[in-house]
Amino acid sequence: MDRTHGGDWAAFEHEYGVPPLDFSASVSPLGVPEGVRAAVAAAAGEIDRYPDPDCRALRRAIAAHEGVEAAWVLCGGGASDLIYRAVQAVKPRRALVTAPCFGEYEAALEAADCEIVRYPLNTVFRLEEGVLAAIDETVDLVILCQPNNPSGVAVDPALLRRIAERCAAARCRLMADECFTDFLDAPDQYSCKPLLAVFPNLLMLKAFTKLYAMAGARLGYALCADEGFLDAMRRAGAPWAVSHLAQAAGVAALRETDYVERVRALVRTERALLSQRLAALGLRVVAGEANFLLFRCDTPLDAPLRRRGILIRRCGDFAGLDDTWYRAAVRTHGDNERLIAALTEVLA
Amino acid sequence: MDRTHGGDWAAFEHEYGVPPLDFSASVSPLGVPEGVRAAVAAAAGEIDRYPDPDCRALRRAIAAHEGVEAAWVLCGGGASDLIYRAVQAVKPRRALVTAPCFGEYEAALEAADCEIVRYPLNTVFRLEEGVLAAIDETVDLVILCQPNNPSGVAVDPALLRRIAERCAAARCRLMADECFTDFLDAPDQYSCKPLLAVFPNLLMLKAFTKLYAMAGARLGYALCADEGFLDAMRRAGAPWAVSHLAQAAGVAALRETDYVERVRALVRTERALLSQRLAALGLRVVAGEANFLLFRCDTPLDAPLRRRGILIRRCGDFAGLDDTWYRAAVRTHGDNERLIAALTEVLA
Repeated sequence: MDRTHGGDWAAFEHEYGVPPLDFSASVSPLGVPEGVRAAVAAAAGEIDRYPDPDCRALRRAIAAHEGVEAAWVLCGGGASDLIYRAVQAVKPRRALVTAPCFGEYEAALEAADCEIVRYPLNTVFRLEEGVLAAIDETVDLVILCQPNNPSGVAVDPALLRRIAERCAAARCRLMADECFTDFLDAPDQYSCKPLLAVFPNLLMLKAFTKLYAMAGARLGYALCADEGFLDAMRRAGAPWAVSHLAQAAGVAALRETDYVERVRALVRTERALLSQRLAALGLRVVAGEANFLLFRCDTPLDAPLRRRGILIRRCGDFAGLDDTWYRAAVRTHGDNERLIAALTEVLA
Repeated sequence: MDRTHGGDWAAFEHEYGVPPLDFSASVSPLGVPEGVRAAVAAAAGEIDRYPDPDCRALRRAIAAHEGVEAAWVLCGGGASDLIYRAVQAVKPRRALVTAPCFGEYEAALEAADCEIVRYPLNTVFRLEEGVLAAIDETVDLVILCQPNNPSGVAVDPALLRRIAERCAAARCRLMADECFTDFLDAPDQYSCKPLLAVFPNLLMLKAFTKLYAMAGARLGYALCADEGFLDAMRRAGAPWAVSHLAQAAGVAALRETDYVERVRALVRTERALLSQRLAALGLRVVAGEANFLLFRCDTPLDAPLRRRGILIRRCGDFAGLDDTWYRAAVRTHGDNERLIAALTEVLA
């Protein structure tokens, strides 16, 4: 399957000569935190040195931030880099993902010639406990996204724990992608972090991409109590996965606590408003809890919004969805109003 | 085998609290070109956007610089990222490398469970034509470094062409790593670039790392006439391999023609001087032509130089070498004199 992604502003600029208003990438709409921008600018004169391959300073900062040992932290060039490394380290013959889910799980599994089992989410995009029966000794890797991309619906924490137990019993790795967990109202209730010490087969992924508006820097990290597995992931790719600039940006980002509070509060408020406004246009909106909303519309939206300078994510390439589904990021109030105004025009 | 690399200034700083004088990484000693530093600083405020996954502007600039079609260019997060992607795209069962060679070839092959055939360079580290007989249908990939790292000795261009022919006949891919080619006195005579149009099985690698002192940014590229193979390499890893910062740095670097002339002239002059000075200390110096020199010394040098604030590359982890071999970058005249003074003390 040919997968696309949101955030391809370069294609838009190439076509229209101006940047789009981009709802297709689910990134903090508050821009690069000033501390991060300044740290990158300051580090620009230091790129004659190789990056620290062990990301020592950054891993110490992440460990302190997450309350785990630095030995449990592996940094990568974005969560996507860590997805490929994890798959290459597991070398799974059979892997289970949900349908729909982030396309890079399947892309990484296909690149490793792995058979993919798609477990469908229910009609409101919730993962049901039937998934437990689908996890057996023939499955080497289970990949979940908490909350799910593109629906924004979170996995029930009690079910997540049972899945981790089931994976442990089946000698199967569990990868829980928490790139959007911080946008939930109660991240601590949904994160699998407390399970790491109990389940060494559990790998948790996070990225700086969305929360800190750092998509262009490429920085993510994996947390896992199985240090041998993290080492296998390290060896699965080039040793300098994280640039010196990304390391500097990451250390600076973890100090941006005010920024994080602001963006989380904005997303919480605006998600509810945007959801109401989309529903008022007669669209079916999924009750997601991330910094994006999945909705359905029979009228084609992609091209007419593009002509109005707006990108949203057409979801036809997600398994289980078709081209009547769209994902839009939650942005600032003014941006969201521009989207609603444009949609109102298109649907009129 | 546990592989190390030069350039681990972070470990040194952790131990000594100050940065080392680093001869262990073979990077331009002239520092980050000002245009590159400024481009990264300017792009720092734009990292809320995803990088262009197709690196459109950068690939156009590289294509113009190299005189090839943009469709023949694939960018990666340093040459090392492209080495792993190439191996994962070929999925070789058996691969041939020279002994010694850059350790990441073997690391990438081992990560892919590939059998490694090591063809030894001769006593003056030259590749002899006997290698042709070692390339048969059982070999899926041949990896050469032009000039060789860590010896700095170049492959004879006529032999390189015969190797490409032999690989084509044996249906085997040839990867020619030209990360150091620009430091040769006559790069055009040694580059395999003219062979690309003739041999679609040939993949040429280059990096911005050494020539432009951009090791910390992670940027390299592959050139190949087989666009389908470049696409397989693209799909072998995450779609955003090259950060927005690295793309901006790369576009700026290709304008730094004065910088390139200066660093090439410096390396040419200082390589000859440093070689003489090392030989005058009674050391056996290999007649390399890159921006580093390989030499042999029975006295352990690593620890005593470290105590004097200097890093060089101990070569015991290169197949075919042992801990009596060292590699030192060619740096500025003053830096090189500091190395010679320290060596004189240690050997006294």
